[in-house]
Amino acid sequence: MSWLEAEFDVIVVGGGHAGTEAAVAAARLGARVALVTSALETIGQMSCNPAIGGVAKGTVVREVDALGGIMGRATDRATLQFRMLNRSKGPAVWAPRAQCDRGLYRRAVRTLLERHANLLTIQGTVARLIMDDGRAAGVETLEGRRFGARAVVITTGTFLRGRIHIGTTTQIGGGRAGEAPTTHLAEQLEAAGLTVARFKTGTPPRIDGRSVDFTRVEKQESELGAFAYRWSHFEDPGLEPLTQLPCFITHLEDAGKEIIATHIGESAMYGGAIASRGPRYCPSVEDKIVKFPEAARHQLFLEPEGLETTEMYVNGLSTSLPAEVQLRTLRTVRGLEQVRMTRAGYAIEYDYYPPTQLGLTFQVRAVPGLYFAGQINGTTGYEEAAGQGVLAGLNAGLAALGRGEPLVLGRETSYLGVLADDIVTRGVDEPYRLFTSRSEFRLTVRQDNALRRLAPVAERLGLYDAPERAAVARRMEREDALTETARRTTIRPEQAAALVERSGTAPLSHALKVAELVRRPGIGLAELLAAAGAPIDEGGEALVTAELELKYAGYYVRERRAAEKLQRMGGFALAAELPYETMRSLTIEARQKLSAQRPMTLAQAARIPGVTPADLQNLVIEVERWR
Amino acid sequence: MSWLEAEFDVIVVGGGHAGTEAAVAAARLGARVALVTSALETIGQMSCNPAIGGVAKGTVVREVDALGGIMGRATDRATLQFRMLNRSKGPAVWAPRAQCDRGLYRRAVRTLLERHANLLTIQGTVARLIMDDGRAAGVETLEGRRFGARAVVITTGTFLRGRIHIGTTTQIGGGRAGEAPTTHLAEQLEAAGLTVARFKTGTPPRIDGRSVDFTRVEKQESELGAFAYRWSHFEDPGLEPLTQLPCFITHLEDAGKEIIATHIGESAMYGGAIASRGPRYCPSVEDKIVKFPEAARHQLFLEPEGLETTEMYVNGLSTSLPAEVQLRTLRTVRGLEQVRMTRAGYAIEYDYYPPTQLGLTFQVRAVPGLYFAGQINGTTGYEEAAGQGVLAGLNAGLAALGRGEPLVLGRETSYLGVLADDIVTRGVDEPYRLFTSRSEFRLTVRQDNALRRLAPVAERLGLYDAPERAAVARRMEREDALTETARRTTIRPEQAAALVERSGTAPLSHALKVAELVRRPGIGLAELLAAAGAPIDEGGEALVTAELELKYAGYYVRERRAAEKLQRMGGFALAAELPYETMRSLTIEARQKLSAQRPMTLAQAARIPGVTPADLQNLVIEVERWR
Ligand SMILES: Cc1cc2nc3c(=O)[nH]c(=O)nc-3n(C[C@H](O)[C@H](O)[C@H](O)COP(=O)(O)OP(=O)(O)OC[C@H]3O[C@@H](n4cnc5c(N)ncnc54)[C@H](O)[C@@H]3O)c2cc1C
Ligand SMILES: Cc1cc2nc3c(=O)[nH]c(=O)nc-3n(C[C@H](O)[C@H](O)[C@H](O)COP(=O)(O)OP(=O)(O)OC[C@H]3O[C@@H](n4cnc5c(N)ncnc54)[C@H](O)[C@@H]3O)c2cc1C
Repeated sequence: MSWLEAEFDVIVVGGGHAGTEAAVAAARLGARVALVTSALETIGQMSCNPAIGGVAKGTVVREVDALGGIMGRATDRATLQFRMLNRSKGPAVWAPRAQCDRGLYRRAVRTLLERHANLLTIQGTVARLIMDDGRAAGVETLEGRRFGARAVVITTGTFLRGRIHIGTTTQIGGGRAGEAPTTHLAEQLEAAGLTVARFKTGTPPRIDGRSVDFTRVEKQESELGAFAYRWSHFEDPGLEPLTQLPCFITHLEDAGKEIIATHIGESAMYGGAIASRGPRYCPSVEDKIVKFPEAARHQLFLEPEGLETTEMYVNGLSTSLPAEVQLRTLRTVRGLEQVRMTRAGYAIEYDYYPPTQLGLTFQVRAVPGLYFAGQINGTTGYEEAAGQGVLAGLNAGLAALGRGEPLVLGRETSYLGVLADDIVTRGVDEPYRLFTSRSEFRLTVRQDNALRRLAPVAERLGLYDAPERAAVARRMEREDALTETARRTTIRPEQAAALVERSGTAPLSHALKVAELVRRPGIGLAELLAAAGAPIDEGGEALVTAELELKYAGYYVRERRAAEKLQRMGGFALAAELPYETMRSLTIEARQKLSAQRPMTLAQAARIPGVTPADLQNLVIEVERWR
Repeated sequence: MSWLEAEFDVIVVGGGHAGTEAAVAAARLGARVALVTSALETIGQMSCNPAIGGVAKGTVVREVDALGGIMGRATDRATLQFRMLNRSKGPAVWAPRAQCDRGLYRRAVRTLLERHANLLTIQGTVARLIMDDGRAAGVETLEGRRFGARAVVITTGTFLRGRIHIGTTTQIGGGRAGEAPTTHLAEQLEAAGLTVARFKTGTPPRIDGRSVDFTRVEKQESELGAFAYRWSHFEDPGLEPLTQLPCFITHLEDAGKEIIATHIGESAMYGGAIASRGPRYCPSVEDKIVKFPEAARHQLFLEPEGLETTEMYVNGLSTSLPAEVQLRTLRTVRGLEQVRMTRAGYAIEYDYYPPTQLGLTFQVRAVPGLYFAGQINGTTGYEEAAGQGVLAGLNAGLAALGRGEPLVLGRETSYLGVLADDIVTRGVDEPYRLFTSRSEFRLTVRQDNALRRLAPVAERLGLYDAPERAAVARRMEREDALTETARRTTIRPEQAAALVERSGTAPLSHALKVAELVRRPGIGLAELLAAAGAPIDEGGEALVTAELELKYAGYYVRERRAAEKLQRMGGFALAAELPYETMRSLTIEARQKLSAQRPMTLAQAARIPGVTPADLQNLVIEVERWR
């Protein structure tokens, strides 16, 4: 082999959300890591909307954080607006979401990467893998630099043969607007015999905030003040939150829908320029108009792009219509009558590698030493990419260091486990994203208890430094102290009366342990302890977790049993004539896919990508009712 | 003509240093302006070293600022390290220079652009000009957007058919590392019959600051504290300076020189891959080794790239050697023995348009409505680009608005005037940058008095808003009050004795006006007024300017006369056998060019690009001595 500039344990290719987490994860294991990416300035770039978190995704961020990742820490440094989604439904299903300053997010990611002395960032576009006897043994860059490694993690996102579309006549090679696609590496991977396929995704236009009539749109303020929420479990006490900015809500109505309908044939997607599948749950506005023609209007969020600019992101209007049509559509929207468009939306088609070619460690089965993580595996979303990055980085690091067992997380411990199992075992037939319904463990796998679920894994692997270990210990002790107090403390009927009455449940006939009474809906742990004469001095997230662990104490066993039962019911027969279309308790995706594929057993249905555990549970009930 | 999305007075193509200033200048005139650039995220990007200012260049920044530009304001927001160069030579030739946080500089530029309500930024890569009856009438982007304009300013820097070289075997199309070159537009401009030529420039490798042994290099601290210097005349009182960082000095010595000499044939430049000329005064390290083999060592500055990263810029080591050789060379340098290279250096070849095709307004003579500014005109340097941007933007705006006379600055008012006159009248035969020797008015055209020189121009054009007008008035009043006080105040011999003695000049025999005594070297205005019993309460830059205006009161006339004399001496004969090589008072560039071209008269010598007014003055003396 010719000269290598340096040798590493792990080389990560790509500095997006998967790549940065993979690099940090391997570095935390003690591996010597290089992150090689096309431009150091774009490390941590958010390709599409400037927001992190949301339902299920927010939980992933916290799982990544519990495993030592950087997404939560970077979000804490860049949050411009914070919302706790699902607030009305109670803390068990709370879902944090943050809009971020796009530029400060990038800066934060870079700073956080550089905290790791054994992690080197290198600017370079990887042109090919160096192979050694069928194993991945390093990378070579377009700039002529060669680096050796025991394991290589590829996280090139939408860049592999990326092709940007705007309307049916404009096509530009690119991995993201303004950035070149990766072709050499794509060709080599394909030549190596891996199966490759194409997906597409899209992004909406951006607008000049100075041209919005804010008196005609609805304002949504940040809730950061109300929560003092920290994404990271490892708080940096000196961190000051940024100035919070509102976002704004408006709607696409008839006039805009008509323009889109008229020009639908000029959309890259509907005009035939793109054939590949896009993300069902981040649909383009063309999809919305075509698939839900009855919807009266579609909500749009105007989200700030950063503190240094008035540019705004038009969430909900992803499109590949010609730029002119995009502008005309925007101007039909209330508040945007005079709007100026700073960037046109576009769609992008790219190579992905069907993830059934991977092991659960994210290693490509056919090529030892080669790992894939992120959008390259057919997923979509920053958080999904980050989560895979952590798992691939840890496994690549463990293998490179020759350290024992690989790391495979169970579905019952985490959304990361669900994600890995779903894509590797069942594959994807459209861009994969996470939902709560994909998990059988929706009540016990929550955003608030990520540390309790995953800190033991991190401790075992040695991912934490001393202050982090101490922070984890403090948090666990605090939770334990609270549940212990609740178990020990007795509350008498007269002490509980007011709270019980407020909750609308039956009065107590005799004294009870607080730990028992707190299971009743509408009764909080702190207020119960106070009423019982054992008030606590400090709240915070430990209190949330302790309360939820007590409330859902029985659920873990119940969820587990239900999951096992589903598995045992694999032979449950599904008649060929089942009217899936009418089964309202199934998701639309499940109805469509079951109708099309008509599996013969529940086990077969379970292998269809997009049919979730929730769908399977509901299906059994629907089938029993139908019989 | 087919549909135009919008019509503007002025469209600026490119968001580098020329483009951003051109857009702001036209916007300040009241024009409706669009800045169309390939990626909004790279607006204000510094392609090479993260520093603004320096000798002559620092003065340009202040001239740009006096005309309402943004470079000084952005520098004030991003300065990590400040030095006043030429401090030992006294304030008349002081030259401010700032190292900047590259990312914060970009953010600042974007914020400053968006202050102008009539300036819209648009992400788009211009694919071609829209022409109307031989006039530039708008632009069309690769994304399919069309915009009309009365004037178009092209400021595409090194992007036109840019080609990146690393060693002799690696060539990548690119306008800057990681960014695509502009080809369509280049082809159209060439097809329009304009003369096109190629230059090259280069950039050094970047390194990981964590791998530097700082105990083995010399530290240079910021002088910001000592000066409380503000680049902008329009101070933002709320602006807090950033944390200041030191830079570090080390040297390339024999071991490194040997490596470069051994591998010189593998350099893109010396190995034949590049034929075009590079910047003489920002030479590659290969140039230094080949042209100055006798130099014992070459100074290198390690400059911070930003507060968010430990990456450093290796100023002095611009190179197009193969990456491997770059790394080996770096590791011979004291303090860099273990260094890790984050990016390889590279050279870039690009199209420029010989600027003799322009009028003094920066309009392309053959294409009405079309203006060129920046590196596209064969110059080099951020400040030179910014200065041209202001002039081109103002002239494009004036023409588009149909407002009277074009703006042409005289050589005696500014470096901007010198730059415009030099490149348009004499052309360039290598990348052009400014020096003090290019100006006949080195003592009266200074960094401290840019406002006095150019505010009247700005006022006449209406470039200032009300608070800016007030700031200018305050500064002028303060200077006037100081010079007036100096003219009115008499100082008696016994009052002046101590100061006069300290200065080593002759004792006073009778009372004098302070304005007269201050002309003596080594005597300051503030101390004189204090000694005369008329102490002043407030210092600042107004005091510097007032003092220098008094000290050099006679120079303006003297410099002007010398310049006129040179012009009158156009017929001064230059013998064919003049031994130019031996004329030590000429710059090396002048000696080489005069030897090669052997002009017959002084006027002919004056037309050779690179022969400065200082050279001409010295030449007359040398010739008279030789005769
Ligand atoms: C236009 C667009 C719209 C999108 N819309 C949505 C949406 O609506 N909803 C949603 O959930 N997700 C969306 N996404 C997807 C989301 O951006 C990705 O899921 C996420 O960024 C994937 O992360 P990643 O780390 O896999 O890849 P990326 O974030 O794409 O990062 C890839 C990295 O690899 C680098 N790279 C590429 N090739 C090379 C090479 N050869 N050598 C070295 N480095 C290389 C790149 O520079 C980049 O740093 C969109 C993406 C795009 C581009
Ligand atoms: C590798 C390198 C090394 C350099 N080294 C030195 C040095 O050592 N010393 C020195 O003084 N100077 C150096 N320079 C030069 C310095 O960077 C330039 O002089 C300065 O940046 C020129 O400013 P500009 O505004 O003309 O162009 P740039 O700063 O290059 O800006 C050009 C802008 O145009 C945009 N653009 C290009 N094509 C299009 C299009 N078709 N449509 C829309 N937008 C477009 C780009 O995105 C960019 O925003 C170097 C430059 C490079 C690239």
